[in-house]
Amino acid sequence: MAQLHPASTAAPLYLTGNKDGLREFLTKFDVFLFDCDGVLWSGDHTFPGTVETLELLRNNGKQLVFVTNNSTKSRADYCKKLQGLGIPSTVEEVFSSSYSSSIYISRILQLPENKLKVFVIGETGIEQELRSENVPFIGGTDPAYRRDVEPEDFKKIAEDDSSIIDPEVGVVLVGLDYHLNYLKLALAFHYIKRGAVFLATNIDSTLPSSGTLFPGAGSMSAPLIMMLGSDPTALGKPSQAMMDAIEGKFKFDRSRACMVGDRANTDIRFGLEGKLGGTLGVLTGVSSKEDFVSGPVRPHAYLDKLSDLLGSEL
Amino acid sequence: MAQLHPASTAAPLYLTGNKDGLREFLTKFDVFLFDCDGVLWSGDHTFPGTVETLELLRNNGKQLVFVTNNSTKSRADYCKKLQGLGIPSTVEEVFSSSYSSSIYISRILQLPENKLKVFVIGETGIEQELRSENVPFIGGTDPAYRRDVEPEDFKKIAEDDSSIIDPEVGVVLVGLDYHLNYLKLALAFHYIKRGAVFLATNIDSTLPSSGTLFPGAGSMSAPLIMMLGSDPTALGKPSQAMMDAIEGKFKFDRSRACMVGDRANTDIRFGLEGKLGGTLGVLTGVSSKEDFVSGPVRPHAYLDKLSDLLGSEL
Repeated sequence: MAQLHPASTAAPLYLTGNKDGLREFLTKFDVFLFDCDGVLWSGDHTFPGTVETLELLRNNGKQLVFVTNNSTKSRADYCKKLQGLGIPSTVEEVFSSSYSSSIYISRILQLPENKLKVFVIGETGIEQELRSENVPFIGGTDPAYRRDVEPEDFKKIAEDDSSIIDPEVGVVLVGLDYHLNYLKLALAFHYIKRGAVFLATNIDSTLPSSGTLFPGAGSMSAPLIMMLGSDPTALGKPSQAMMDAIEGKFKFDRSRACMVGDRANTDIRFGLEGKLGGTLGVLTGVSSKEDFVSGPVRPHAYLDKLSDLLGSEL
Repeated sequence: MAQLHPASTAAPLYLTGNKDGLREFLTKFDVFLFDCDGVLWSGDHTFPGTVETLELLRNNGKQLVFVTNNSTKSRADYCKKLQGLGIPSTVEEVFSSSYSSSIYISRILQLPENKLKVFVIGETGIEQELRSENVPFIGGTDPAYRRDVEPEDFKKIAEDDSSIIDPEVGVVLVGLDYHLNYLKLALAFHYIKRGAVFLATNIDSTLPSSGTLFPGAGSMSAPLIMMLGSDPTALGKPSQAMMDAIEGKFKFDRSRACMVGDRANTDIRFGLEGKLGGTLGVLTGVSSKEDFVSGPVRPHAYLDKLSDLLGSEL
């Protein structure tokens, strides 16, 4: 087998059906970081062979980490989802963009004493992880923000009226929000203009579900990016803030770690920029064979589907 | 007075307090196209002297056209607003992005017979103008679309279920929508992916109100632009589709027309790209003196405020 190439520009190895190639690939790594949706399952449908493939890796002593940009669920929720799909896992093996964001806010951002609150655009997963790090927040799933904007809101926001604007907000954190509305966007914009730090759990523009694509977390940030003319600091893949946090927790040797994913521009890029020993693309999600073989960001190797790893017969 | 420069790169003339300069400027034009919000008023507050300034222009035989990217109101609504602010006007003098969009759909787009419907993200102004051109539409202010997305919606949309996806939709038209939500964005994205034409009434990222900025129509398109990786055809300023429509209606000599506005990158650009004889910036809205004097898009002349035209004593 050829050496794994270090850059992203060489053609990736196609390993489906190549037993020796698969074995050689797998022995190079101790840790496998998995993107989940589009790799292990799609929506609520687990791909055939997912459970057996993960079992094969565990049986061969590999450490598994489930890395997800899904910010709507907490790690605990996500672990339950994995278990519900028949995939044994622990909360400690799950790394979500909402957790990564909470760690960034509580441990890395140096906020002034009177600007510690986070205004959240997002669902309960973000709230749970912020609570786990003792970060105060407003917005999120609070019904007070799930309403139509009213004419008087414009005036109150413009005047920093304390009935609607909290002067202690120092961060705006934007994740996937199924209840996005005009009021939340107006408030987020206003807070950022007043000096709040603009963070995003992740910037995936789309969300795969039911075999097609829906608005993703990046689409929630898009109006703010357009209005502000600047991008948020993103804490999910492919941000290396997430890789640093994962490494900080699992203390692995990057050269012995492999990122597995279905998206060239997030998952594979995440592994390449993180200088992991390997990246493995699968064709059960967003990116196509053409993306992997001749796109601008190419994995070291790719498979038709994750369960093709079973062909290693390890 | 120096010649009006033809390009947008020369320094603009500052005419406030310059009686002779003002007189010379005004005599060059027969038609004045006015941006409204930020020029004549802000929110519901008419600037002092607006009424008298427009009266002075009318008394000197100038044709006035009120050109607005505000798509939430129909021309009739907008005319009422002008009259309510003490500004005499007729529906015929009003040109809105919703009207421009409706004309574009009904008279310029060649839609297949079975794809004549428009899916609207926007408010009643768009609906009224589409009706005036007999364009069938869904979405808009229909309460059926003003609701939370439900888990079953994902499946139904993915499956083109006829209870939620109308196969006759051939256009998605996005304007300012105070009731923007996840469901509408998901549907708009799905329709465009199925082949619908992607139109925007306008792409202003922000909306001035109560002396500050709020999300504008462009912010409603932003998630779709990010998801699709492509821009809509925009029918409001600075799109020349709007200028062509105005000229088609008013039959004026462009060299004798002047665009008046507060935004360099929409109003002034609109006039410059339309090769109007003049462009006049005012400092009562979005752009600053610095924008006008040294930005990439510069008006031929600028004023502190519109009513400085009264200094011409014509």
